[in-house]
Amino acid sequence: MKTVKDGEVRKREILIAARGLFVNKGYDQTSVNDILNIVNIAKGTFYYYFASKEEVLEAIILDIVEEGARKAEKIIKNKDIPLVNRIMMAIMAQAPEFEGADEIKDELHKVENAKLEQLYLKTMLRRMTPILQEPVLEGIERGIFQMDYPTECIESILLLGHMMFDCNVCEWNIEEYPRKIQAFLSNTERMLGAKDGELKVFLQMFGQMR
Amino acid sequence: MKTVKDGEVRKREILIAARGLFVNKGYDQTSVNDILNIVNIAKGTFYYYFASKEEVLEAIILDIVEEGARKAEKIIKNKDIPLVNRIMMAIMAQAPEFEGADEIKDELHKVENAKLEQLYLKTMLRRMTPILQEPVLEGIERGIFQMDYPTECIESILLLGHMMFDCNVCEWNIEEYPRKIQAFLSNTERMLGAKDGELKVFLQMFGQMR
Repeated sequence: MKTVKDGEVRKREILIAARGLFVNKGYDQTSVNDILNIVNIAKGTFYYYFASKEEVLEAIILDIVEEGARKAEKIIKNKDIPLVNRIMMAIMAQAPEFEGADEIKDELHKVENAKLEQLYLKTMLRRMTPILQEPVLEGIERGIFQMDYPTECIESILLLGHMMFDCNVCEWNIEEYPRKIQAFLSNTERMLGAKDGELKVFLQMFGQMR
Repeated sequence: MKTVKDGEVRKREILIAARGLFVNKGYDQTSVNDILNIVNIAKGTFYYYFASKEEVLEAIILDIVEEGARKAEKIIKNKDIPLVNRIMMAIMAQAPEFEGADEIKDELHKVENAKLEQLYLKTMLRRMTPILQEPVLEGIERGIFQMDYPTECIESILLLGHMMFDCNVCEWNIEEYPRKIQAFLSNTERMLGAKDGELKVFLQMFGQMR
């Protein structure tokens, strides 16, 4: 008897196989047939779960957001880490770490995939804002931050971080990069109403991300 | 004898006709033939200037950026207007005013046109940042603003303004709108290092933009 769980497992198998192919062969060069060959299923089974190859990539993007969000939640819960560090680490955790993550992101950043890039940003914003809400409110309460619009401040920091460092709208060259990161940290500090220099400790961490 | 100017005039005729059609019939519903019928040229002539209908839309987008930039330059030069007002008015001048501008922008904001939306943002950022540089530096010199990264501050304000109010990543409902504008002005103030409340006067102006 086919159970709901079987369906979920099958779906996951397709996603894992597709991820591997997109990373190794490239999205454009991967056909639905390539995916079928690896998962060893009939075409009809594939189309039962996904309407198209693009829908598979969409599902992978939602997975990337979810992975980032779960890492962020875990970091936020770890009260051994100072508050400001937790917030910045949770934001940085949005850079996916699984094997081939960079390749999937490169795929996203291609001009042809602007639609999927928007989907990523929209989903990430919706998923991450509530996660960061709690520590930011704690920071306000403890007098570390000072702001009137916490939700919008988080949205703005996430948007700016993405637009400046994680999409193809701004393409800095290697020499511009350190200054752009310093400026981003300075603007983040100001929006949070934190002490001047409070985020300087993250300069190095951000540098390591690239 | 065909002169360069003839070519430019012809190109402009195509752009004006296409703009009218995109606005009235919609981009998807407009064919290259529709454009030919209005400008009264042969298909070959059209394809001499543009490779596709999409390239026409791209050219219209560059025109929109250029129109906004020229308006901004004019405002910045008008020293009768107080400095802070000039800067905010120049940013707001990016909302195009020509007839049908909203329809063209709606076209841009459709998910299918994410690629063109990115083109708009990239071009706008490159064109507008140097225009705003001069008045921002003047503001720093006069002690109205205080910041270490003027270029990046301008980039961030332009990016945030676009992402929060002028694309389809953030879709606020009508009740959320006033708060989002207040938050944007507050974040802009903080990034510029301006006095708290310095930009409050723009709340109403922004409100009228929608």
